[in-house]
Amino acid sequence: MKKYGIAIHGGAGTILKSLLTTEKEFEYKKALEDAIHAGETILNKGGTSLDAVEKAIICLENNPLFNAGKGAVFTNKGKHEMDACIMNGKDLTTGAVTGVSNIKNPISLSRAVMEKTEHVFLSGEGAMDFAKSINSNFENDDYFFVQMRYDQLQKAKETDSIILDHTVDGFENGEKKFGTVGAVALDIHGNLAAGTSTGGMTNKKFGRVGDSPIVGAGTYANNTTCAISCTGNGEFFIRSIVAYDVSCLMEYKGLSLKEACDIVVKDKLVKIGGEGGLVAIDSKGNIELPFNTEGMYRAKKSSTEELFIGIYK
Amino acid sequence: MKKYGIAIHGGAGTILKSLLTTEKEFEYKKALEDAIHAGETILNKGGTSLDAVEKAIICLENNPLFNAGKGAVFTNKGKHEMDACIMNGKDLTTGAVTGVSNIKNPISLSRAVMEKTEHVFLSGEGAMDFAKSINSNFENDDYFFVQMRYDQLQKAKETDSIILDHTVDGFENGEKKFGTVGAVALDIHGNLAAGTSTGGMTNKKFGRVGDSPIVGAGTYANNTTCAISCTGNGEFFIRSIVAYDVSCLMEYKGLSLKEACDIVVKDKLVKIGGEGGLVAIDSKGNIELPFNTEGMYRAKKSSTEELFIGIYK
Repeated sequence: MKKYGIAIHGGAGTILKSLLTTEKEFEYKKALEDAIHAGETILNKGGTSLDAVEKAIICLENNPLFNAGKGAVFTNKGKHEMDACIMNGKDLTTGAVTGVSNIKNPISLSRAVMEKTEHVFLSGEGAMDFAKSINSNFENDDYFFVQMRYDQLQKAKETDSIILDHTVDGFENGEKKFGTVGAVALDIHGNLAAGTSTGGMTNKKFGRVGDSPIVGAGTYANNTTCAISCTGNGEFFIRSIVAYDVSCLMEYKGLSLKEACDIVVKDKLVKIGGEGGLVAIDSKGNIELPFNTEGMYRAKKSSTEELFIGIYK
Repeated sequence: MKKYGIAIHGGAGTILKSLLTTEKEFEYKKALEDAIHAGETILNKGGTSLDAVEKAIICLENNPLFNAGKGAVFTNKGKHEMDACIMNGKDLTTGAVTGVSNIKNPISLSRAVMEKTEHVFLSGEGAMDFAKSINSNFENDDYFFVQMRYDQLQKAKETDSIILDHTVDGFENGEKKFGTVGAVALDIHGNLAAGTSTGGMTNKKFGRVGDSPIVGAGTYANNTTCAISCTGNGEFFIRSIVAYDVSCLMEYKGLSLKEACDIVVKDKLVKIGGEGGLVAIDSKGNIELPFNTEGMYRAKKSSTEELFIGIYK
């Protein structure tokens, strides 16, 4: 049987063991395991990396623990504006959305943009008009109401801060976390895929777009090199075109996936103040989960490797 | 005196000599010359590449001949939704906007995003809220009404086509043109800058975002390599991360600007069906203006080279 593999993340940041209760830690690990399992089941049966990535991200979007889908943070206006992107490494097709509200699974809407339009990237009201035209799954505001996220917004508003990150248990515990979920996979047909989904920043204003829906920045897949999904302070990831940079270092400089990831995440990003990490898989099934923060919710599993779940350094 | 240079474009496409009247050709050449002159005057006096790029693009945005600013095409809903991006090669800072209406000069709004916010990319209503907060120059719908653009929309609606390109004299003459304007420059301080501005596609729906405001796709600048501004069918430019690809081929593979541009525009883009071109300048002042279509409105001038203005192959 040919090799397959999948890796996922649920955000990076100042995630310290001292800040998570045993119960919370268990909840996160269970959520990551369920998402990996959902994706791996597809790959194991000979399904596509695109299906595995979408399915794993749907699991994370449906879980209020993560800042994507149901758990998306509140904007300054008390709304949820979500971004997502998916890319097929086989033919470099891709679809992305930014600033969509009330969409249950933005990752699936991204896939519809890729497969059902001649476009790559749709935004705001227009993207939601498209979602209606294809009968996407909508949910009302109640579905997206998560008390912890609402409390975060109130705290952010009190200090008039635009919060680039979000926390697990509120700000008071000092935890800093970049809320995004993502997945990358290699299927037995040799095809790579990557996807990313996020609720952005608590208290964000001005229709800010982060790196998640930007092809080459937060998300990239190319069968000749690798598939990448990023999480971090998006502005720095956009300026560094992080995902495509890893791919170019492999393709043009002949670096291994590990070498390329280490240069981009632990050297280049650090130099400009970029905090976060990424999950990556190459065309041979090698998996890397680099980050330059205290922690990153992450997991991986392949046809030759046991399940790994990590939270801290 | 140290070297400086500037190059601009006003869109690429099926621009054939047989399709342009002598008078129209003169008008285009005059507009390109005026824009180059405005930018070069700044560089010649020791000004920054960022100022030169912004000024040249403002000239093109204010001219109804080009699909940006005043001449922006109509969306399906009869509105003008514009995108723009600017990048500073000195420190890799950048600013971009998508889906903004009634903004006289989107390139200047992009620059304000770069210089006055902690963000990189703002969209739609949010971006316009930001514009209001900094007293950007707004214009009413009348300012953006150009009869020729309105006629294009009616024709596009009649055939229910989402037009990826726009024409000079309407569709009937068969001309296909990707409407975007852009500029790149090197100043005597050794700093590179790039900018791009567009009105998108006639009859566009769903808040479609093209490559122009995407850092790495339509616009990129890095002092260690080059500055790039693209024009073409944006979806292919996004998938290929065109601008950063040229930069990576130079940085990681050691190619010259010309070699990198030729590979990306005349080989890689052609293979996936990407039509268009770009203007590029490297840190030594070399300028390239490659395109894979019948023509591209373009011009260049440097401290060591005379003015060049081109339209056809």
